[in-house]
Amino acid sequence: MGIWILRLGHRRVRDQRITSHCALVARAFGAKGITYSGEKDENLEKSIRKVVEKWGGPFEIRYEKNQKKIIKDWKGKIVHLTMYGLPIQDVINEIKGCKKDLLVIIGSQRVPGKVYNLSNWNVAVTNQPHSEVASLAVFLDKFFGGMELEKEFENKKIKIIPLKRGKKVLKV
Amino acid sequence: MGIWILRLGHRRVRDQRITSHCALVARAFGAKGITYSGEKDENLEKSIRKVVEKWGGPFEIRYEKNQKKIIKDWKGKIVHLTMYGLPIQDVINEIKGCKKDLLVIIGSQRVPGKVYNLSNWNVAVTNQPHSEVASLAVFLDKFFGGMELEKEFENKKIKIIPLKRGKKVLKV
Repeated sequence: MGIWILRLGHRRVRDQRITSHCALVARAFGAKGITYSGEKDENLEKSIRKVVEKWGGPFEIRYEKNQKKIIKDWKGKIVHLTMYGLPIQDVINEIKGCKKDLLVIIGSQRVPGKVYNLSNWNVAVTNQPHSEVASLAVFLDKFFGGMELEKEFENKKIKIIPLKRGKKVLKV
Repeated sequence: MGIWILRLGHRRVRDQRITSHCALVARAFGAKGITYSGEKDENLEKSIRKVVEKWGGPFEIRYEKNQKKIIKDWKGKIVHLTMYGLPIQDVINEIKGCKKDLLVIIGSQRVPGKVYNLSNWNVAVTNQPHSEVASLAVFLDKFFGGMELEKEFENKKIKIIPLKRGKKVLKV
């Protein structure tokens, strides 16, 4: 069972850093990959692939123009992160119990009503306005129960040795 | 006991959305306010104050040119969120046990070495590159033990009624 992220409606200029943070969070917190729709963005893809090359994987970034297709063709279950949804603390155990691959959808611009209807769970990480980057991180952390914090990546060139003070980076 | 966030080295153009997401996360996840250093940004402040006016508070955003001063004058304890620090899962209980106000520092550009030295805890939310927005959210969620997800805000004009599907916003 694995988790894949779908980032809707990427805008090259306005969303570059936010989508990049979403992709990095997806990788760091244990998702297998991210697909984004909206505007194709070579720089975004390059920068994420550079991180994977340096810090390890596996992790993939893909572009898909037709976001409906991904949602309709998805064989597993679907979670849509939205401030309008049910509180994560009320539904996370049900979601954790699902034994299928999970597609986690995060919006940017206004999300089409169909996404709400096609999702198995519309989940709110607080019902307050904040950030899809934060929602994704907290969702994945709760889904994996903190296990993702210990994840070791494969084929990495460098890794950090945690320190009380200062910085230590190891070439591996 | 309360938590205040310090966002270092804000750059008006490059960081506007990321700092804005940090401030919104700070508010939504239970911090009392955020101070940012770097470039003064009226639009950032206005947009956060609009959110507080509409969705409730209390929550404050402040600008301080002299970031060293805030750190040196802080009377409580200091947490610095950095990928080079000790794993959050190893230090969160110690931090939760601290009975003083907490300043949580998040960087943007390269963080001066002094920040590492002046902090009581340098904390890593994974030792992987990702996002200060995500680190802040996960830190606050673990610090408050999920209680912040139930937080009610004061003097709000609207609130969301969580739904399985669709959107419901209540004027209060």
